[in-house]
Amino acid sequence: MSVHQGRERLVVVGGDAAGMSAASQARRMKGPEELEIVAFERGHFTSYSACGIPYWVGGAVAERDALIARTPEEHRARGIDLRLRTEVTELDVSGGRVRARDVDSGAESWTSYDRLVIATGARPVRPELPGADAPGVHGVQTLDDGQALLDTLTRARGRRAVVVGAGYIGVEMAEALIDRGFEVTVVNRGQEPMSTLDPDMGRLVHRAMEGLGITMVNDAEVTKILTGADGRVRTVATQHGEYPADVVVLGIGVRPETALARAAGLPLGAHGGLLTDLAMRVRGHENIWAGGDCVEVLNLVSGQEQYVPLGTHANKHGQVIGTNAGGGYATFPGVVGTAVSKVCDLEIARTGLREKDARRVGLRYETVTIESTSRAGYYPGASPMTVKMLAERRTGRLLGVQIVGREGAAKRVDIAAVALTAGLTVEQMTALDLGYAPPFSPVWDPVLVAARKAAAKVREG
Amino acid sequence: MSVHQGRERLVVVGGDAAGMSAASQARRMKGPEELEIVAFERGHFTSYSACGIPYWVGGAVAERDALIARTPEEHRARGIDLRLRTEVTELDVSGGRVRARDVDSGAESWTSYDRLVIATGARPVRPELPGADAPGVHGVQTLDDGQALLDTLTRARGRRAVVVGAGYIGVEMAEALIDRGFEVTVVNRGQEPMSTLDPDMGRLVHRAMEGLGITMVNDAEVTKILTGADGRVRTVATQHGEYPADVVVLGIGVRPETALARAAGLPLGAHGGLLTDLAMRVRGHENIWAGGDCVEVLNLVSGQEQYVPLGTHANKHGQVIGTNAGGGYATFPGVVGTAVSKVCDLEIARTGLREKDARRVGLRYETVTIESTSRAGYYPGASPMTVKMLAERRTGRLLGVQIVGREGAAKRVDIAAVALTAGLTVEQMTALDLGYAPPFSPVWDPVLVAARKAAAKVREG
Repeated sequence: MSVHQGRERLVVVGGDAAGMSAASQARRMKGPEELEIVAFERGHFTSYSACGIPYWVGGAVAERDALIARTPEEHRARGIDLRLRTEVTELDVSGGRVRARDVDSGAESWTSYDRLVIATGARPVRPELPGADAPGVHGVQTLDDGQALLDTLTRARGRRAVVVGAGYIGVEMAEALIDRGFEVTVVNRGQEPMSTLDPDMGRLVHRAMEGLGITMVNDAEVTKILTGADGRVRTVATQHGEYPADVVVLGIGVRPETALARAAGLPLGAHGGLLTDLAMRVRGHENIWAGGDCVEVLNLVSGQEQYVPLGTHANKHGQVIGTNAGGGYATFPGVVGTAVSKVCDLEIARTGLREKDARRVGLRYETVTIESTSRAGYYPGASPMTVKMLAERRTGRLLGVQIVGREGAAKRVDIAAVALTAGLTVEQMTALDLGYAPPFSPVWDPVLVAARKAAAKVREG
Repeated sequence: MSVHQGRERLVVVGGDAAGMSAASQARRMKGPEELEIVAFERGHFTSYSACGIPYWVGGAVAERDALIARTPEEHRARGIDLRLRTEVTELDVSGGRVRARDVDSGAESWTSYDRLVIATGARPVRPELPGADAPGVHGVQTLDDGQALLDTLTRARGRRAVVVGAGYIGVEMAEALIDRGFEVTVVNRGQEPMSTLDPDMGRLVHRAMEGLGITMVNDAEVTKILTGADGRVRTVATQHGEYPADVVVLGIGVRPETALARAAGLPLGAHGGLLTDLAMRVRGHENIWAGGDCVEVLNLVSGQEQYVPLGTHANKHGQVIGTNAGGGYATFPGVVGTAVSKVCDLEIARTGLREKDARRVGLRYETVTIESTSRAGYYPGASPMTVKMLAERRTGRLLGVQIVGREGAAKRVDIAAVALTAGLTVEQMTALDLGYAPPFSPVWDPVLVAARKAAAKVREG
């Protein structure tokens, strides 16, 4: 139902990483004479690094605008009809059109498309609790959220902060708040922080965070957020006790923002994300693609769909979608579950499957945990690191790696990420020709030490 | 020809990384009641990190003994009959025995073996030039060499140093001498420093070294080393001019120390190294193994034998040899040519094939070179890095990566090392799930940026 003369129209819903990468790549594939590109974004910004918000809040990044990879003006200069502050309110898939509302005026109108990209991102989980919307309680999903939090930090009467959640965002926000001079308490539902790690590795993070002066409260359910006479947040209550708070940061995760897709009858997975094929096409829909934080992705190790909201995947999705929507061919084969993070000088990394992931999909495994150092032991700055490795029984195939250490620890997980992608066994990994010189590694890289031990355990089987 | 009652004897020739790793691993496999292990070492030390010598000379490592991974006493305590200051002077392969000479007394005797490990290491190339043996001219192959150089640095009347050679040892010694307060001139035969890189990448190293205050003299052949009235080194002469020198360090590479093996008729390759099978057995000899700096290794990318003297390979060889000589089974499949180094804050890495290596084996390739940063561009400490990537035409198989940058550059080469081992194409690499967070990487890791560009070039092919 193309109403425009000759050229086709690509409509993009959502103007952050996945959406605008797709738009930009589609534009590279096809010029404005062939393809019209209309992008709707309900906020004020495009193509920004949500992952950078903790560092802006903490002060390591001085300016909000540093987080913006490409401004609306830059997109428009490349021939993308970008409509800011315009929220898509309905996808009419059978009619090939979307309804959009001007956020400021409330005016609504329909826009038809030949090809559609859904990049509606994620929404933060907010606890359904009394006080959860009180002034002084903040999420950190958008640049606007970040600015609001910064305003609160500046005005706060005291220096006590409570972070709810101890995943990536929680621990990164703990660092940011320390950097801003706050006393930080992290309240965590799980047994240990960083539930993306096995608990034995999370325990190392726990201890290191305490070493940084952070108060960790594990196994804690927030029951209430109490406010003072001024209506502002004052205390976070859990079943373990109450924690005074001049500011509360919610870092309890995000969910795919797929209300529109659900209403349009598009296929959603068990985690609530859109389901796509390898070309990032929404399953069963030849001319609709979806990517970024609103989709589920295939975990190549477990063979199952997973929800992994991460900017780096969103950018890859956008690239693949833009290529396909622009008439080319590209695929996103899946993820292996790599993630890296830091809290002050503590580095945390993981890839592949945890023990419980392996069990869930029926894999039997061996695990080993080793201690090594980032550099030759005698070289200045050598710092300890712990590497845990999972390998499948019998086959010895690498299943996952978790690393907790200091400088030089986190990015070593890339070795395992490539090995997982290639399906290497831990025995094969023992022979990997990794970079060695005393300032960079012990003569046996920590990943090789773990692989040797894992290979021995598999052989003993 | 076993003369001892019942138990077999393993003789190890050479007591550094490969030899003593082999001895230790064989001991783990078999106790003293089953296997006698005799190791001959002509020097004073065992199991030390030759790679660490530049950092000891430079002062980053305070004590020589920090470089010794395991002392003679520790080896003896594990049931290894270690004979220091005892040089093997002949291998009698048909007779199953070795002749050894006590370096101090000159006394010689034969020792029979059931199994033999040859780990004679490398000898530094010394130019056949007048003055090359003058006081103040130093190699840096052994701990004794390092001590002699340190003594010279302490006593030197001036602060001018000339390093001959601009490979790994040359550039690392340049750093060490800067750290000791010397003015450093590097005299280099090649077009650019670091001939293990393509010249375009070597050019980046050249500029960076000049930025560090090092005087680089390329395309320069040393013609003479001139001494003063006291007989000590005074000047290094090349066809380009003369360079005053209070100390000269030779870093012009090493050759396999295979005189004994050659005399015994064992098979040597084109680079003068022993040839082994995948179990590190000397070809054609069931009960003789060789490893470390005296062997050639298979480059898995070129399919050809190569000489790569590196401590990390020596350790792996020792592990494999010890397992096999101890009655187990292990193999060393080969290398992909990974090496990392640094000069002050400059990091240099390479893996796989250079352009000339690819041409030599008949491979056609595409190359790309990209600029990126070690962290998200907005994150403090993000430093620039240049990544060059080679991919095979048509197949798109990764052939090699070279990286020159600052902090966080060198170990990224491990991503490519694993990809080479697994035979990934650059197109496959574009989807690698590498660790991303702003303190660790841009949203597209520099290696992914290079892979994307290389993949596009292969497709355009």
